[in-house]
Amino acid sequence: MTKKYVYLFSEGDSSMKNLLGGKGANLAEMTRLGFPVPQGFTVTTEACTKYYNEGGKLTPNIANEIHDALGQIEGVVGKKFGDKNNPLLVSVRSGSRASMPGMMDTILNLGINDDVVEGLVSLTGNPRFAYDSYRRFIQMFSDVVMELPKSNFERIIDDIKDEKGIKSDSELAAEDFKDMVSRFKQFYKEKMGEEFPQQPEKQLLESVNAVFRSWENPRAIVYRRMNDIPHDWGTAVNVQVMVFGNSGNESGTGVAFTRNPSTGEKELYGEFLMNAQGEDVVAGIRTPQKISQLKQVMPEAYEEFTKAAEKLENHYRDMQDMEFTIENKKLYMLQTRSGKRTAQAAIKIAVDLVAEGLIDKKQAVMNVDPKQLDALLHPTFDTAALKAAEVLATGLAASPGAASGKVYFTAESAVSAAEKGESVILVRLETSPEDIEGMHAAAGILTARGGMTSHAAVVARGMGRCCVAGCGSLQINEEEKYFTVKGEKFNEGDFISLDGSTGNLYKGKIETMQAQLTGDFATFMSWADGFRKLKIRANADVPNDAKAALNFGAEGIGLCRTEHMFFEEDRIPIVREMIISKTTAQREKALAKLLPIQRADFEGLFTAMNGLPVTIRLLDPPLHEFLPKSDADIKDLSIEMGIPFEELKATINDLHEFNPMLGHRGCRLAVTYPEIAAMQAQAIIEAAVNLAKNKIKVTPEIMIPLVGELKELKYVKDVVTKAADDVIKASGIEIEYLVGTMIEVPRAAITADEIAKEADFFSFGTNDLTQMTYGFSRDDATKFLDHYYEKKIFDFDPFARIDVEGVGKLVETAVQLGKKTKPNIKLGICGEHGGDPSSIKFCHDLGLHYVSCSPYRVPIARLAAAQAVITEKN
Amino acid sequence: MTKKYVYLFSEGDSSMKNLLGGKGANLAEMTRLGFPVPQGFTVTTEACTKYYNEGGKLTPNIANEIHDALGQIEGVVGKKFGDKNNPLLVSVRSGSRASMPGMMDTILNLGINDDVVEGLVSLTGNPRFAYDSYRRFIQMFSDVVMELPKSNFERIIDDIKDEKGIKSDSELAAEDFKDMVSRFKQFYKEKMGEEFPQQPEKQLLESVNAVFRSWENPRAIVYRRMNDIPHDWGTAVNVQVMVFGNSGNESGTGVAFTRNPSTGEKELYGEFLMNAQGEDVVAGIRTPQKISQLKQVMPEAYEEFTKAAEKLENHYRDMQDMEFTIENKKLYMLQTRSGKRTAQAAIKIAVDLVAEGLIDKKQAVMNVDPKQLDALLHPTFDTAALKAAEVLATGLAASPGAASGKVYFTAESAVSAAEKGESVILVRLETSPEDIEGMHAAAGILTARGGMTSHAAVVARGMGRCCVAGCGSLQINEEEKYFTVKGEKFNEGDFISLDGSTGNLYKGKIETMQAQLTGDFATFMSWADGFRKLKIRANADVPNDAKAALNFGAEGIGLCRTEHMFFEEDRIPIVREMIISKTTAQREKALAKLLPIQRADFEGLFTAMNGLPVTIRLLDPPLHEFLPKSDADIKDLSIEMGIPFEELKATINDLHEFNPMLGHRGCRLAVTYPEIAAMQAQAIIEAAVNLAKNKIKVTPEIMIPLVGELKELKYVKDVVTKAADDVIKASGIEIEYLVGTMIEVPRAAITADEIAKEADFFSFGTNDLTQMTYGFSRDDATKFLDHYYEKKIFDFDPFARIDVEGVGKLVETAVQLGKKTKPNIKLGICGEHGGDPSSIKFCHDLGLHYVSCSPYRVPIARLAAAQAVITEKN
Repeated sequence: MTKKYVYLFSEGDSSMKNLLGGKGANLAEMTRLGFPVPQGFTVTTEACTKYYNEGGKLTPNIANEIHDALGQIEGVVGKKFGDKNNPLLVSVRSGSRASMPGMMDTILNLGINDDVVEGLVSLTGNPRFAYDSYRRFIQMFSDVVMELPKSNFERIIDDIKDEKGIKSDSELAAEDFKDMVSRFKQFYKEKMGEEFPQQPEKQLLESVNAVFRSWENPRAIVYRRMNDIPHDWGTAVNVQVMVFGNSGNESGTGVAFTRNPSTGEKELYGEFLMNAQGEDVVAGIRTPQKISQLKQVMPEAYEEFTKAAEKLENHYRDMQDMEFTIENKKLYMLQTRSGKRTAQAAIKIAVDLVAEGLIDKKQAVMNVDPKQLDALLHPTFDTAALKAAEVLATGLAASPGAASGKVYFTAESAVSAAEKGESVILVRLETSPEDIEGMHAAAGILTARGGMTSHAAVVARGMGRCCVAGCGSLQINEEEKYFTVKGEKFNEGDFISLDGSTGNLYKGKIETMQAQLTGDFATFMSWADGFRKLKIRANADVPNDAKAALNFGAEGIGLCRTEHMFFEEDRIPIVREMIISKTTAQREKALAKLLPIQRADFEGLFTAMNGLPVTIRLLDPPLHEFLPKSDADIKDLSIEMGIPFEELKATINDLHEFNPMLGHRGCRLAVTYPEIAAMQAQAIIEAAVNLAKNKIKVTPEIMIPLVGELKELKYVKDVVTKAADDVIKASGIEIEYLVGTMIEVPRAAITADEIAKEADFFSFGTNDLTQMTYGFSRDDATKFLDHYYEKKIFDFDPFARIDVEGVGKLVETAVQLGKKTKPNIKLGICGEHGGDPSSIKFCHDLGLHYVSCSPYRVPIARLAAAQAVITEKN
Repeated sequence: MTKKYVYLFSEGDSSMKNLLGGKGANLAEMTRLGFPVPQGFTVTTEACTKYYNEGGKLTPNIANEIHDALGQIEGVVGKKFGDKNNPLLVSVRSGSRASMPGMMDTILNLGINDDVVEGLVSLTGNPRFAYDSYRRFIQMFSDVVMELPKSNFERIIDDIKDEKGIKSDSELAAEDFKDMVSRFKQFYKEKMGEEFPQQPEKQLLESVNAVFRSWENPRAIVYRRMNDIPHDWGTAVNVQVMVFGNSGNESGTGVAFTRNPSTGEKELYGEFLMNAQGEDVVAGIRTPQKISQLKQVMPEAYEEFTKAAEKLENHYRDMQDMEFTIENKKLYMLQTRSGKRTAQAAIKIAVDLVAEGLIDKKQAVMNVDPKQLDALLHPTFDTAALKAAEVLATGLAASPGAASGKVYFTAESAVSAAEKGESVILVRLETSPEDIEGMHAAAGILTARGGMTSHAAVVARGMGRCCVAGCGSLQINEEEKYFTVKGEKFNEGDFISLDGSTGNLYKGKIETMQAQLTGDFATFMSWADGFRKLKIRANADVPNDAKAALNFGAEGIGLCRTEHMFFEEDRIPIVREMIISKTTAQREKALAKLLPIQRADFEGLFTAMNGLPVTIRLLDPPLHEFLPKSDADIKDLSIEMGIPFEELKATINDLHEFNPMLGHRGCRLAVTYPEIAAMQAQAIIEAAVNLAKNKIKVTPEIMIPLVGELKELKYVKDVVTKAADDVIKASGIEIEYLVGTMIEVPRAAITADEIAKEADFFSFGTNDLTQMTYGFSRDDATKFLDHYYEKKIFDFDPFARIDVEGVGKLVETAVQLGKKTKPNIKLGICGEHGGDPSSIKFCHDLGLHYVSCSPYRVPIARLAAAQAVITEKN
């Protein structure tokens, strides 16, 4: 049997979404349930795939199927395509599996031509309606199918109105529309070099082709990448008998939601326009009325619609977004689908639907997109205030939330302004580890360079600071402390506002609203927690972040980056003293000064976490990150440290690396300078001992980074356990501790059976693992990755979502090999992927024990982990 | 049954080398064959392993076994350990599986003490001999076992000679030696805080411990790393009854080879000393006599020894290196082993042994170490001239060969001096791609920075230029054109000499001798070629290198790096014009100028290779490598190109990368600028067309670098095939060509089944694959890898020898996955490992089709590939 590429609405149902697209499947389902749906047919998503496989051509057999389906529809409605005396007109709409606003617009009134329009005049006695319909069709077909922009036609309409001296479209008479049609056709012929197509079947096939073509337009590609929709899904095309909301004053059209999509309140929410076609509601020429007013205007239709809405919501067990048309008092349902909603509404609707008995908790948990929660967890701009604000530029939405404040250009000035109680926006070309304190003090961070995984972006997300990164249209002069954008100059102290969820930079101050973790939110999250098996930890380096993480429901710290502690003002001079030491003795002297500070750091963290597990990573970055780069800064430091400039500069030059990512860092530092690792281990265990004296039991997890070889791990582990055991012995207090490793170097994954011999736990550092598996530097890849998206080589950013085929394969290998050696080895992930829902599902399916992410992503991870259980295959 | 750790010589044979070490196994074999061997026993290599497993202690049961063996030897020789009246003395020597000069020295005369020495006096009537033996033992035991340096004892000897007013040791009388013994013991007690050990069994056990300890001394560790000897092999200890070559004028000792180890000539070659112990031959106090003179001195012993030598060579079927002692006219054989020999001798001996019917060709091929061939392929210094030369410094032996010439500090001055016919040594802090022409013009290259895989080292090896890299004791002032070393200043034009095989830098000019690929060499290599299955290709970018490669027996080019072509003087301005282009049109204009130049490049290569396969890699390095870095150079270029300085500088800044190794390079360039790949493909195929017109059939293999994802390969391949097919169509000439990819990114290896769908061949780029699998940058790793060797984390340099467990696993995975998709996919390797014998064996075992290496390594690869077949398991 040959494959079927065209289905009548009466042949499908809602289970056939992959084949018919969302719109097509729901039209079929409504037909099946007896709703008043104008009939029609769907050309399947497989036809789209075939179209591309054939090099962008509709095969003759699909064209034949369309012809046949059209014939059947003609039979059903008793009208004929292109028949002047009883014409069938249709609409053509795209409809993929997932709702995709980036795609083709609708074409209405298809099937009309010079003959048919005359027939319509006779049949309806309404020449104004007939010619209005014709000119609309020409306009839409030209725009959507032939890519002749709408504005050309709007100009002709304006000409006619000018000639007539009228202002509003409603003043145009039938003759005017007739004139308009002929001018439109004239214009079309000039531009396209041929007459406007008069054969309805040609109009239809060209339109189907256009829908398929639109699947690959740039807007659609970008939208799919943003929303993780695979390119190979394809779109379906829906061809539906026209009903006319613009056929008189007893006709109309509207859209409505079964619940309020902003708040989630249970109320019919929407609007309608009498004597109008669908596009008029959107176009905003006339102001639509609230849906509740339809009750007065057309009570029977209203009554029928509210019943249909309720029935649909009950049937689909979710809030519905519906389109309808009333033609001469008769109601037609044109579409229904699950309605888009705000995060707040999503939570409320999910909780309410459970209370109403429509869905169970499992379904409720599945109904909320984890990514949406982000909006609930950060401050947002006041909606009204935002509308009035001027967008100066748009950068990358690097870390969500909204912030208003005064511009500062250095970490120091940001810190001192914040101490005075000012709200600060830190503006930098790009940030570096030296800016950490300034970033912490700021309400928001704005950079001109760097991508989604730049230093600014990663650190800001970790801190929950709003950040717009890589805002290339900014010209920043850091030395003279100003930036210009859109020809306007902003000095230190001027107000700007940032939206880290959209990437927008606004002029001036905009009011923000704090996040509310309300009752519904807590209820909903407790349901999610009931399902999930993965533990959720947070990446946190300081007690404040740890407390934020606990507040969001974290069950431990999966990654404490000790280097962040080293950058603080009171430590950096000692750290530098340690780095420029020429002998082990000198280095140990400096380390002895760091020891009590580090111990206090860990005491703070352990106290905040009150017995929950804390994984501490030993010093990771290359040492040159702690030293200045410019000659001026080196000179300052040489005076501060009392070292000759030339000597200091030589030391810094010696530390220079061609590829710092692949350089002297991670456990390689501990191999060269075991005394650093020993000091850190001593500080960790001493802190645990001190807490034990206060009856808080801590089991520190000491993590050795960048391991690629068993003997390397063994060497550093021996240093760590010796230092730790010495402390334990001296204290006389029993402290349990684990020593494990990051799996972030491909070789570690490949040889994980060996590595596991010396590791109590593996924590997958998927940031670096992704860098090394692809051979991409995060800092450099932004320059070329756009070409990869554009040329459809990559569907998504592998630093945001785990690359299952490559990086994921290595993770899977490491899990299998690690368990082979040590069946109960503790397994977690602490890369950026730990906060990404699809990556969390991957981690769950692999059987990891926990994921660790930024504190602000903890609720997202909790929900994603619950959904991973629910969608599990077994 | 418990394991046996001690074997009498009469219990073993030569097949037990792994257990008994080389020396022990051969002593046993000689015993078995009835040679006159002083009897004794061997403590096994497994005892050494056990010693380390027990934390550096000899277990009691091993000590017991030693005691028992000693008892059996006492029975055999009828003497008794520590028995004043009939004392047994022994020697103690280390002996591992492979000969290891880095290890413990010999201890002779063990078993002597204050009593025994008196007994010896009575027994021999020779007090001078007795006390001389005692003082020698104290000296050796103190030095070797207790680490009291020999020089302390030499000082005491000098004191005695001064007191007596005598010059030579031979003038010392018995009384003097007696005095010496007492002063030695006194000194020992002062330093060690205890009496010199008097119990023979304690002396023995301490000595055995010392041999085991010496396995881990730094010299031994370095030696093992240089020679690929695993740390876990351990060493055996040989305890042998002493015979005394110093017991009078009818005694003596000597060493001899069955053939000349320098030339390979068949002649007994060696020397001997009468009335001496072994150490005297080495110490050089008396000048030994040529072995042929023994015929006059002691004809019977000579006769017996020559017969023994012949018998041993025939038995072992290889040139033997023997030690013997004559005690009162009786000959004793103390050692035999395969003799070390020069490369030239190795070849001659192998060929001669086949002619003599002693071995077959297979054995001949196995008898030559491939690495040794290197010495044959490069110029060497005249041995006599070298002895007189002053070593100024020693750097890394980065590329073999010898060169003498005048110092130049810039590529330009090197080129112009070479054009005047001068022999040039290019001296640089470190080299960069801009130095290529200067490196090519130079006879040798000397750098102060960089490791074995630095730019200088890699390029020099590729070109066959001698190179000493990372010579840290040089202070180079490139601007003022001089360097200083050892307090001496060398200016431009001064003569120096480099030995790239030892890393030595010499003052002045030293005569060099050219490599001779003589008749024996050709014969030997033809035998190797008869066995091997791997094809051997060369990495070559220009016709001259290609010709050198052919001369060495290359069967194709496995890697032509097109970027090297871009750096030449006539191209670099056009390349820069291309890089700073703002539009595709501008870039295409520049590329159009490069096209005929590239085409001529490929015509040259194809012509040189005359139909053999040529793999051409598309442009690989990041574009910033083609642009200047310093402000001064940027200014010069801005004037040259007529571009404002600021604009050029901004472009260069934009191209800056944090981790260029992981940056915008390889196929990523072709994704961003497909026009570059298209130009290169066009040039390649046009060149092939032009050759076809001259009846030379070329099948170009176009290689796309740095691929990590199928769609990436597909995109670039489509660009390449379109350009290629356009040329073919236009020419009307049928050209076959292949398009394949490097496998050098871990993700490519993991997803090789996918990648293979679009690849005609895989070429493993194990340099980059090693970098990314370990997360090491070659340029930066030298800084910390020394710590890794020192701490025994790494046994060898993974950039020199393939890391089988990690990188090798990925190669294996890629081979399996690739073949699953495409069973006949062509497989090769083109990293530095392609010239390393153990890596070549790995490639052979995996079933690759070819390896590609530097032209000068081609003979090595041919031999290694043959040995891989012969040593194959099946």
